[in-house]
Amino acid sequence: MAHNLDESLSLLARTPAALDALLRDQPEIWTLRNEGPNTWNAAEIVGHLISGERTDWVPRARMIMQFGESKTFEPFDMKGHVREVEGKSINQLLDEFAQLRTNNLVELRAWKLQPADLERRGVHPSLGTVTMSQLLATWPAHDMTHLHQLSRVLAHQYREAVGSWSEYMGVLQCSGHSSE
Amino acid sequence: MAHNLDESLSLLARTPAALDALLRDQPEIWTLRNEGPNTWNAAEIVGHLISGERTDWVPRARMIMQFGESKTFEPFDMKGHVREVEGKSINQLLDEFAQLRTNNLVELRAWKLQPADLERRGVHPSLGTVTMSQLLATWPAHDMTHLHQLSRVLAHQYREAVGSWSEYMGVLQCSGHSSE
Repeated sequence: MAHNLDESLSLLARTPAALDALLRDQPEIWTLRNEGPNTWNAAEIVGHLISGERTDWVPRARMIMQFGESKTFEPFDMKGHVREVEGKSINQLLDEFAQLRTNNLVELRAWKLQPADLERRGVHPSLGTVTMSQLLATWPAHDMTHLHQLSRVLAHQYREAVGSWSEYMGVLQCSGHSSE
Repeated sequence: MAHNLDESLSLLARTPAALDALLRDQPEIWTLRNEGPNTWNAAEIVGHLISGERTDWVPRARMIMQFGESKTFEPFDMKGHVREVEGKSINQLLDEFAQLRTNNLVELRAWKLQPADLERRGVHPSLGTVTMSQLLATWPAHDMTHLHQLSRVLAHQYREAVGSWSEYMGVLQCSGHSSE
Protein backbone atom coordinates (compact mmCIF):
# COMPACT_ATOMS: atom_id res chain seq x y z
CA MET A 1 0.00 0.00 0.00
CA ALA A 2 1.45 3.34 -1.05
CA HIS A 3 1.46 6.37 1.19
CA ASN A 4 1.85 10.10 0.84
CA LEU A 5 5.58 10.86 1.04
CA ASP A 6 5.05 14.52 1.94
CA GLU A 7 3.10 13.45 5.01
CA SER A 8 5.93 11.14 6.06
CA LEU A 9 8.54 13.84 5.58
CA SER A 10 6.37 16.27 7.52
CA LEU A 11 6.38 14.01 10.59
CA LEU A 12 10.01 12.93 10.21
CA ALA A 13 11.08 16.58 10.24
CA ARG A 14 9.46 17.11 13.65
CA THR A 15 10.76 14.23 15.75
CA PRO A 16 14.12 15.82 16.64
CA ALA A 17 12.40 18.98 17.94
CA ALA A 18 9.89 16.94 19.95
CA LEU A 19 12.66 14.95 21.63
CA ASP A 20 14.63 18.14 22.15
CA ALA A 21 11.67 19.78 23.88
CA LEU A 22 11.30 16.84 26.24
CA LEU A 23 14.93 16.07 27.03
CA ARG A 24 17.38 18.97 26.60
CA ASP A 25 18.97 20.13 29.87
CA GLN A 26 16.76 17.80 31.86
CA PRO A 27 17.86 16.26 35.15
CA GLU A 28 19.12 12.69 35.13
CA ILE A 29 15.78 11.22 36.17
CA TRP A 30 14.44 12.04 32.69
CA THR A 31 17.54 11.23 30.66
CA LEU A 32 19.54 8.45 32.31
CA ARG A 33 17.01 6.21 34.07
CA ASN A 34 15.55 3.19 32.37
CA GLU A 35 12.83 0.62 33.07
CA GLY A 36 15.15 -1.99 34.61
CA PRO A 37 17.75 -4.50 33.38
CA ASN A 38 18.16 -4.66 29.59
CA THR A 39 16.00 -1.61 28.92
CA TRP A 40 16.99 1.72 27.43
CA ASN A 41 17.10 5.17 28.97
CA ALA A 42 16.26 8.32 27.00
CA ALA A 43 19.86 8.87 25.93
CA GLU A 44 20.05 5.33 24.55
CA ILE A 45 16.78 5.82 22.67
CA VAL A 46 18.24 8.94 20.99
CA GLY A 47 21.43 6.94 20.34
CA HIS A 48 19.37 4.24 18.62
CA LEU A 49 17.65 6.87 16.45
CA ILE A 50 21.09 8.28 15.54
CA SER A 51 22.17 4.78 14.60
CA GLY A 52 19.09 4.48 12.34
CA GLU A 53 19.92 7.75 10.58
CA ARG A 54 23.45 6.52 9.87
CA THR A 55 22.78 2.96 8.76
CA ASP A 56 19.10 2.22 8.28
CA TRP A 57 16.58 4.43 6.49
CA VAL A 58 18.37 6.50 3.86
CA PRO A 59 21.19 3.98 3.31
CA ARG A 60 18.55 1.30 2.62
CA ALA A 61 16.58 3.64 0.37
CA ARG A 62 19.81 4.32 -1.51
CA MET A 63 20.33 0.56 -1.90
CA ILE A 64 16.84 0.17 -3.36
CA MET A 65 17.58 2.94 -5.89
CA GLN A 66 20.97 1.48 -6.83
CA PHE A 67 20.53 -2.27 -6.56
CA GLY A 68 16.83 -3.05 -6.29
CA GLU A 69 16.33 -6.69 -5.35
CA SER A 70 19.82 -7.76 -6.41
CA LYS A 71 21.38 -6.87 -3.05
CA THR A 72 20.06 -7.53 0.48
CA PHE A 73 20.11 -4.70 3.09
CA GLU A 74 22.74 -4.94 5.81
CA PRO A 75 21.12 -6.25 9.02
CA PHE A 76 20.44 -3.37 11.43
CA ASP A 77 22.66 -3.37 14.51
CA MET A 78 20.37 -3.20 17.56
CA LYS A 79 23.46 -2.55 19.71
CA GLY A 80 24.59 0.35 17.53
CA HIS A 81 23.44 2.89 20.12
CA VAL A 82 26.11 1.71 22.58
CA ARG A 83 28.95 3.40 20.72
CA GLU A 84 26.73 6.34 19.71
CA VAL A 85 26.04 7.37 23.31
CA GLU A 86 29.55 6.76 24.64
CA GLY A 87 30.90 9.91 26.29
CA LYS A 88 28.10 12.12 24.95
CA SER A 89 25.69 14.29 26.91
CA ILE A 90 21.99 14.21 26.14
CA ASN A 91 22.33 17.65 24.53
CA GLN A 92 25.09 16.41 22.22
CA LEU A 93 22.97 13.40 21.26
CA LEU A 94 19.97 15.60 20.50
CA ASP A 95 22.12 17.91 18.34
CA GLU A 96 23.59 14.96 16.49
CA PHE A 97 20.22 13.35 15.83
CA ALA A 98 18.77 16.64 14.57
CA GLN A 99 21.71 17.23 12.23
CA LEU A 100 21.68 13.70 10.80
CA ARG A 101 17.90 13.78 10.32
CA THR A 102 18.11 17.14 8.52
CA ASN A 103 20.86 15.87 6.23
CA ASN A 104 18.93 12.71 5.44
CA LEU A 105 15.73 14.61 4.62
CA VAL A 106 17.67 17.01 2.39
CA GLU A 107 19.16 14.05 0.53
CA LEU A 108 15.86 12.25 0.19
CA ARG A 109 14.05 15.36 -1.07
CA ALA A 110 16.80 15.89 -3.64
CA TRP A 111 15.99 12.52 -5.19
CA LYS A 112 12.52 13.87 -6.15
CA LEU A 113 11.01 10.42 -5.88
CA GLN A 114 8.14 9.72 -8.25
CA PRO A 115 5.22 7.35 -7.63
CA ALA A 116 7.01 4.67 -9.65
CA ASP A 117 10.06 4.97 -7.39
CA LEU A 118 7.89 4.23 -4.36
CA GLU A 119 7.03 0.90 -5.99
CA ARG A 120 10.69 -0.10 -6.31
CA ARG A 121 11.67 -3.15 -4.35
CA GLY A 122 14.52 -4.13 -2.10
CA VAL A 123 15.34 -7.14 0.06
CA HIS A 124 15.27 -7.02 3.84
CA PRO A 125 17.47 -9.65 5.53
CA SER A 126 14.55 -11.06 7.59
CA LEU A 127 11.37 -9.71 5.98
CA GLY A 128 12.27 -10.46 2.38
CA THR A 129 10.92 -8.26 -0.38
CA VAL A 130 9.81 -4.80 0.70
CA THR A 131 9.00 -1.64 -1.23
CA MET A 132 10.46 1.85 -1.08
CA SER A 133 7.04 3.04 0.02
CA GLN A 134 7.01 0.61 2.96
CA LEU A 135 10.55 1.56 3.96
CA LEU A 136 9.76 5.29 3.93
CA ALA A 137 6.48 4.79 5.85
CA THR A 138 8.27 2.66 8.45
CA TRP A 139 10.76 5.43 9.15
CA PRO A 140 8.25 7.80 10.88
CA ALA A 141 6.38 4.82 12.37
CA HIS A 142 9.71 3.82 13.93
CA ASP A 143 10.07 7.35 15.36
CA MET A 144 6.64 6.89 16.94
CA THR A 145 7.60 3.50 18.36
CA HIS A 146 10.46 5.16 20.19
CA LEU A 147 8.39 8.16 21.30
CA HIS A 148 5.94 5.61 22.68
CA GLN A 149 8.82 3.88 24.46
CA LEU A 150 10.23 7.19 25.74
CA SER A 151 6.90 8.27 27.24
CA ARG A 152 6.75 4.91 29.01
CA VAL A 153 10.34 5.16 30.30
CA LEU A 154 9.67 8.65 31.68
CA ALA A 155 6.35 7.67 33.31
CA HIS A 156 8.00 4.59 34.81
CA GLN A 157 10.15 6.82 37.03
CA TYR A 158 6.95 7.86 38.84
CA ARG A 159 5.37 4.41 39.11
CA GLU A 160 5.45 4.60 42.93
CA ALA A 161 5.16 8.37 43.29
CA VAL A 162 1.68 8.55 41.73
CA GLY A 163 0.24 6.24 44.42
CA SER A 164 -3.24 4.88 43.69
CA TRP A 165 -3.50 6.99 40.51
CA SER A 166 -1.33 4.36 38.81
CA GLU A 167 -4.43 2.40 37.81
CA TYR A 168 -5.68 5.38 35.76
CA MET A 169 -2.40 5.96 33.93
CA GLY A 170 -2.55 3.93 30.73
CA VAL A 171 1.17 4.28 30.08
CA LEU A 172 1.89 2.51 33.38
CA GLN A 173 -0.10 -0.52 32.20
CA CYS A 174 2.05 -0.80 29.07
CA SER A 175 4.59 -3.57 29.41
CA GLY A 176 6.34 -2.69 26.17
CA HIS A 177 6.16 -4.56 22.93
CA SER A 178 8.48 -6.46 20.68
CA SER A 179 11.37 -4.58 19.13
CA GLU A 180 11.11 -1.43 21.21
CA MET B 1 6.05 8.14 48.44
CA ALA B 2 7.31 11.67 48.00
CA HIS B 3 8.98 12.90 44.85
CA ASN B 4 11.16 15.78 43.76
CA LEU B 5 8.83 18.62 42.77
CA ASP B 6 11.48 20.40 40.69
CA GLU B 7 11.81 17.31 38.52
CA SER B 8 8.05 17.22 37.98
CA LEU B 9 7.92 20.89 37.08
CA SER B 10 10.84 20.41 34.73
CA LEU B 11 8.95 17.80 32.72
CA LEU B 12 5.56 19.56 32.94
CA ALA B 13 7.12 22.69 31.44
CA ARG B 14 8.22 20.77 28.34
CA THR B 15 5.08 18.92 27.26
CA PRO B 16 3.48 21.84 25.39
CA ALA B 17 6.63 22.38 23.30
CA ALA B 18 6.90 18.65 22.54
CA LEU B 19 3.30 18.53 21.31
CA ASP B 20 3.82 21.75 19.40
CA ALA B 21 6.86 20.30 17.63
CA LEU B 22 4.90 17.24 16.57
CA LEU B 23 1.58 18.79 15.61
CA ARG B 24 1.69 22.49 14.62
CA ASP B 25 0.79 23.12 10.97
CA GLN B 26 0.65 19.40 10.28
CA PRO B 27 -1.63 17.88 7.65
CA GLU B 28 -4.89 16.31 8.79
CA ILE B 29 -3.48 12.80 8.83
CA TRP B 30 -1.45 13.72 11.93
CA THR B 31 -4.02 15.93 13.66
CA LEU B 32 -7.55 14.76 12.85
CA ARG B 33 -7.37 11.00 12.40
CA ASN B 34 -7.98 8.63 15.26
CA GLU B 35 -7.72 4.89 15.90
CA GLY B 36 -11.36 4.10 15.10
CA PRO B 37 -14.76 4.56 16.77
CA ASN B 38 -14.64 6.07 20.26
CA THR B 39 -10.97 6.95 20.08
CA TRP B 40 -9.32 10.35 20.13
CA ASN B 41 -7.39 12.19 17.44
CA ALA B 42 -4.43 14.46 18.26
CA ALA B 43 -6.63 17.56 18.54
CA GLU B 44 -8.86 15.79 21.06
CA ILE B 45 -5.84 14.69 23.07
CA VAL B 46 -4.68 18.32 23.29
CA GLY B 47 -8.28 19.29 24.17
CA HIS B 48 -8.23 16.76 27.01
CA LEU B 49 -4.94 18.19 28.30
CA ILE B 50 -6.49 21.70 28.16
CA SER B 51 -9.43 20.39 30.14
CA GLY B 52 -7.01 19.02 32.76
CA GLU B 53 -5.26 22.38 33.07
CA ARG B 54 -8.59 24.10 33.69
CA THR B 55 -10.25 21.68 36.09
CA ASP B 56 -7.91 18.97 37.30
CA TRP B 57 -4.34 19.46 38.52
CA VAL B 58 -3.96 22.96 39.94
CA PRO B 59 -7.62 23.29 40.96
CA ARG B 60 -7.29 20.04 42.93
CA ALA B 61 -3.97 21.14 44.45
CA ARG B 62 -5.70 24.38 45.49
CA MET B 63 -8.46 22.34 47.13
CA ILE B 64 -5.91 20.35 49.10
CA MET B 65 -4.32 23.59 50.33
CA GLN B 66 -7.66 25.15 51.24
CA PHE B 67 -9.82 22.26 52.40
CA GLY B 68 -7.58 19.23 52.96
CA GLU B 69 -9.69 16.14 53.47
CA SER B 70 -12.84 18.06 54.33
CA LYS B 71 -13.93 18.45 50.71
CA THR B 72 -13.84 15.88 47.88
CA PHE B 73 -12.42 16.85 44.45
CA GLU B 74 -14.93 17.42 41.66
CA PRO B 75 -15.02 14.34 39.39
CA PHE B 76 -12.97 14.96 36.23
CA ASP B 77 -15.08 15.30 33.08
CA MET B 78 -13.68 12.82 30.53
CA LYS B 79 -15.86 14.50 27.88
CA GLY B 80 -14.51 17.97 28.68
CA HIS B 81 -12.37 17.97 25.53
CA VAL B 82 -15.48 18.03 23.33
CA ARG B 83 -16.24 21.67 24.04
CA GLU B 84 -12.54 22.57 24.21
CA VAL B 85 -11.87 21.50 20.63
CA GLU B 86 -15.06 22.90 19.12
CA GLY B 87 -14.25 25.29 16.27
CA LYS B 88 -10.54 25.44 17.10
CA SER B 89 -7.61 24.61 14.85
CA ILE B 90 -4.78 22.44 16.11
CA ASN B 91 -2.58 25.55 16.32
CA GLN B 92 -5.13 27.34 18.50
CA LEU B 93 -5.37 24.30 20.77
CA LEU B 94 -1.59 24.11 21.09
CA ASP B 95 -1.40 27.81 21.96
CA GLU B 96 -4.15 27.45 24.53
CA PHE B 97 -2.59 24.43 26.18
CA ALA B 98 0.82 26.16 26.35
CA GLN B 99 -0.68 29.30 27.89
CA LEU B 100 -2.74 27.43 30.48
CA ARG B 101 0.20 25.21 31.43
CA THR B 102 2.47 28.25 31.84
CA ASN B 103 -0.09 30.01 34.04
CA ASN B 104 -0.57 26.91 36.17
CA LEU B 105 3.16 26.41 36.69
CA VAL B 106 3.58 30.09 37.61
CA GLU B 107 0.80 29.75 40.18
CA LEU B 108 2.15 26.51 41.61
CA ARG B 109 5.69 27.88 41.92
CA ALA B 110 4.34 30.96 43.70
CA TRP B 111 2.97 28.73 46.47
CA LYS B 112 6.57 27.74 47.34
CA LEU B 113 5.43 24.34 48.56
CA GLN B 114 7.48 22.87 51.40
CA PRO B 115 8.04 19.16 52.08
CA ALA B 116 5.25 19.26 54.67
CA ASP B 117 2.84 20.62 52.02
CA LEU B 118 3.57 17.61 49.80
CA GLU B 119 2.28 15.41 52.65
CA ARG B 120 -1.06 17.24 52.77
CA ARG B 121 -4.04 15.12 51.93
CA GLY B 122 -7.13 15.48 49.81
CA VAL B 123 -10.00 13.23 48.79
CA HIS B 124 -10.40 11.90 45.27
CA PRO B 125 -13.99 10.94 44.36
CA SER B 126 -13.01 7.38 43.38
CA LEU B 127 -9.52 6.78 44.82
CA GLY B 128 -10.18 8.17 48.30
CA THR B 129 -7.36 9.77 50.23
CA VAL B 130 -4.44 10.98 48.13
CA THR B 131 -1.50 13.26 48.90
CA MET B 132 -0.36 16.51 47.29
CA SER B 133 2.82 14.69 46.32
CA GLN B 134 0.86 11.97 44.49
CA LEU B 135 -1.31 14.55 42.72
CA LEU B 136 1.69 16.54 41.51
CA ALA B 137 3.56 13.38 40.38
CA THR B 138 0.47 12.19 38.51
CA TRP B 139 0.31 15.41 36.52
CA PRO B 140 3.48 14.74 34.42
CA ALA B 141 2.74 10.98 34.37
CA HIS B 142 -0.62 11.91 32.84
CA ASP B 143 1.19 14.00 30.20
CA MET B 144 3.26 10.90 29.38
CA THR B 145 0.12 8.74 29.16
CA HIS B 146 -1.19 11.04 26.46
CA LEU B 147 2.14 11.32 24.65
CA HIS B 148 2.14 7.52 24.65
CA GLN B 149 -1.39 7.58 23.23
CA LEU B 150 -0.48 10.25 20.66
CA SER B 151 2.50 8.28 19.36
CA ARG B 152 0.18 5.29 18.95
CA VAL B 153 -2.51 7.32 17.16
CA LEU B 154 0.05 8.73 14.73
CA ALA B 155 1.67 5.33 14.04
CA HIS B 156 -1.78 3.78 13.55
CA GLN B 157 -2.24 5.88 10.40
CA TYR B 158 0.56 3.85 8.80
CA ARG B 159 -0.53 0.42 10.02
CA GLU B 160 -1.00 -0.77 6.42
CA ALA B 161 1.61 1.43 4.76
CA VAL B 162 4.55 -0.15 6.63
CA GLY B 163 3.77 -3.59 5.19
CA SER B 164 5.58 -6.49 6.83
CA TRP B 165 7.59 -4.12 9.03
CA SER B 166 4.52 -3.85 11.26
CA GLU B 167 5.69 -6.82 13.32
CA TYR B 168 8.84 -4.91 14.31
CA MET B 169 7.02 -1.72 15.32
CA GLY B 170 6.27 -2.04 19.03
CA VAL B 171 3.81 0.84 18.98
CA LEU B 172 1.64 -1.05 16.47
CA GLN B 173 1.35 -3.95 18.94
CA CYS B 174 -0.01 -1.60 21.63
CA SER B 175 -3.74 -1.95 21.94
CA GLY B 176 -4.02 0.93 24.37
CA HIS B 177 -4.67 0.74 28.05
CA SER B 178 -7.34 1.78 30.48
CA SER B 179 -8.07 5.47 30.83
CA GLU B 180 -6.15 6.70 27.81
